[in-house]
Amino acid sequence: MNVISGIAEMQSAAEELRRSGKRIGMVPTMGFLHEGHLSLMRIARSHADAVVTSIFVNPTQFGPAEDFEKYPRDIERDTRLAASAGTAILFVPTVAEMYPDGYATYASVDRITDVLEGKVRPGHFRGVATVVAKLFHCAAPHVAVFGQKDAQQVAVLRRMTLDLNFPVEIIVGPIVREADGLAMSSRNVYLSPEERRQSTVLHRSLAKAGELIRAGERRAGVLIGAMSDLIAAQAAAKVDYISVADADTLKELQVLAQGASVLLSLAVRFGATRLIDNSLVNL
Amino acid sequence: MNVISGIAEMQSAAEELRRSGKRIGMVPTMGFLHEGHLSLMRIARSHADAVVTSIFVNPTQFGPAEDFEKYPRDIERDTRLAASAGTAILFVPTVAEMYPDGYATYASVDRITDVLEGKVRPGHFRGVATVVAKLFHCAAPHVAVFGQKDAQQVAVLRRMTLDLNFPVEIIVGPIVREADGLAMSSRNVYLSPEERRQSTVLHRSLAKAGELIRAGERRAGVLIGAMSDLIAAQAAAKVDYISVADADTLKELQVLAQGASVLLSLAVRFGATRLIDNSLVNL
Repeated sequence: MNVISGIAEMQSAAEELRRSGKRIGMVPTMGFLHEGHLSLMRIARSHADAVVTSIFVNPTQFGPAEDFEKYPRDIERDTRLAASAGTAILFVPTVAEMYPDGYATYASVDRITDVLEGKVRPGHFRGVATVVAKLFHCAAPHVAVFGQKDAQQVAVLRRMTLDLNFPVEIIVGPIVREADGLAMSSRNVYLSPEERRQSTVLHRSLAKAGELIRAGERRAGVLIGAMSDLIAAQAAAKVDYISVADADTLKELQVLAQGASVLLSLAVRFGATRLIDNSLVNL
Repeated sequence: MNVISGIAEMQSAAEELRRSGKRIGMVPTMGFLHEGHLSLMRIARSHADAVVTSIFVNPTQFGPAEDFEKYPRDIERDTRLAASAGTAILFVPTVAEMYPDGYATYASVDRITDVLEGKVRPGHFRGVATVVAKLFHCAAPHVAVFGQKDAQQVAVLRRMTLDLNFPVEIIVGPIVREADGLAMSSRNVYLSPEERRQSTVLHRSLAKAGELIRAGERRAGVLIGAMSDLIAAQAAAKVDYISVADADTLKELQVLAQGASVLLSLAVRFGATRLIDNSLVNL
């Protein structure tokens, strides 16, 4: 595995791969890799000849009160793990080169960024869209793989890729979970043992809603009520939002229509730690 | 010359050129070509193996009260002229494919878009940055050529290309003028014979300011006053702005410092027609 930090060097390496007829698969990450990230690298490998994994804790997607500074980092471990999962090039740009003095350009996606995570984290998706546009220009991927864990991010990046005519195919990898159902996340390390125990409620409430739907329930309000009740039973949990929305437009649904693709999603705080999870249901 | 309308077809053609080791030069235009555009194609040809000229009257860079509908178009003549100036591929996408239903993504550049043209035409440069990002993804140019006539556009696109890490070199072609000094523009056809006669005042006032600078004048206010007096003598002319600014940041200058790169620019209305012109002075 080759580790590249400079943007020009990354662009040359990508150009070289393309010139020799190789397909490039990209997995953009913020590092502190877990099995979820590694699964995306394996998916990328199955669609490409060379996998470029980027590790960049992107300051423009963190709000001023968020955890940019203390976001967990472990580049030595990440380097080992990325290599083990088939990454050919690990791209680790610096903040100084990504956002030099005088930096002024942003990519933004209207409407679907106004709800859910975008509502709670203003500016977050502008930062995500911008950094992914930049990373695509650095690594020139044919295909890029993102995790379903960040469902709204997937919707935003699909929209951006389509709208700006990036010649990049977007592939989505399924959520990878711990044995007890908690979705893997770099932020899980923030949880105290007690919070960690209670955090399984995210997965359990999504499972409960899924059961209700399979039993015929079609009223979004009833599903949200059931999830809300489960979460309320956990003392440390505070709900940011629980959403039942159209999977593409992210517009909230009142009733689940036959044939609809529905995104159940939620964000719950445990102390200072904010966890998200979701489930996609096709009726 | 090959004429391509579909975006996917353009991307395939660009991929094909790149795979065969050819350098692609791009000239984005809104058509109704004149000698200024043709000079850019010749410059592109001198830096690339294949020139892609795009013709697209981009709705997102026109304000609601502007001339999108009546912007002059003549695709037959343009096709002939583009071929004569060495264009290999004429790319003429449709509005429907460039901005499909649900379109939501924009590229925007902060700060330098708040002044001059950006101040008078809110949203204009967001539209320009967005369409150029899209066109770059369609034609995958190694080098793109823009005209100095649109000086602020050049500054905005340089900034965007740098900030978003587009692997594209930006080259700027000089302003091409009519025999009497009027800068060539597709909008010149709007002028009545009397307005056309008076319109040379843009060029004459820039020339006057240049003379004053060469004679030692360093006060921006004096330069603006002299240009303003000349324009005021033309009955049909109404000044939008006259600016003496730093060529990179576009910040207004009070005094021209030694070593400065200074952009003299102005926008003047003749009836419903708005003309711009500029001159770059290195001290």
